[in-house]
Amino acid sequence: MKNSRWVALAGALTLGMSAATIAHQVKDEPQQSYRQSYFALIGANFGPIAAMVQGKLPYSAEGVQERANNLKALSSIDVTSAFSEGSDKGTTRAKPEIWANTADFKAKFADMQEAIVALQAAEGEQGAVAKAVGGVGRTCKACHDEYKAKDYLY
Amino acid sequence: MKNSRWVALAGALTLGMSAATIAHQVKDEPQQSYRQSYFALIGANFGPIAAMVQGKLPYSAEGVQERANNLKALSSIDVTSAFSEGSDKGTTRAKPEIWANTADFKAKFADMQEAIVALQAAEGEQGAVAKAVGGVGRTCKACHDEYKAKDYLY
Repeated sequence: MKNSRWVALAGALTLGMSAATIAHQVKDEPQQSYRQSYFALIGANFGPIAAMVQGKLPYSAEGVQERANNLKALSSIDVTSAFSEGSDKGTTRAKPEIWANTADFKAKFADMQEAIVALQAAEGEQGAVAKAVGGVGRTCKACHDEYKAKDYLY
Repeated sequence: MKNSRWVALAGALTLGMSAATIAHQVKDEPQQSYRQSYFALIGANFGPIAAMVQGKLPYSAEGVQERANNLKALSSIDVTSAFSEGSDKGTTRAKPEIWANTADFKAKFADMQEAIVALQAAEGEQGAVAKAVGGVGRTCKACHDEYKAKDYLY
């Protein structure tokens, strides 16, 4: 991932494209930037919970719940509205299928929202959290499998 | 901003630093990345509300309220916990003063949270929104004046 971005960037520089296209706030690509910031926060909160459940980080009920609360807050933001027509180009790994199957894409987002409700409701109890993490992870994967390219296409 | 980032990036490339340091998800700088994603979402939701109040975008009570709800959700995420020791380096515009004046920094974040409550409570009513936007904007500025550098320091 890191290497491939590096190669993509080197290519972009060679082509004279603005390097600002991969910054956090990108005026030329506001929706792509918004989506990436959003999912960066989702990942940064979900990752440690998953790692705790897998024993890769020490388990902390409080740490889980704080992140579950963050995920619940984030999931209330309808990021699917940041995939409007024309925002399928540029710095994005969103596959064209998103724009062809909008209803299914939105349904998969709703699945994530629902799974996060269960994660928050687990209140840090390790067994319930482990089960809920599996549920959330499946909704991530279901959407990524269908709608997220392995690498940037530009 | 765009130009200065470009120059900074060119410098980074010259120095052989990883270009991945300005991507949305950065493994080497997780806290810097988290902060920037967070504030990108804050800005992307607040900007259009401010523009509507200033007459730069057509006013939409519904559009305001959706973004105010997003801001309320985001403000529940304690981003001040992503400024731990050692994360003052790298791709960041956070001034060292943050780490010297943690209590004040957190108080200024709490001011933002409070101002956003008022913005959400305005329920899209244009006069009340205009007043609340001023309130939120002042809390942004108060913190930026003290704690955000005009440009990246690396």
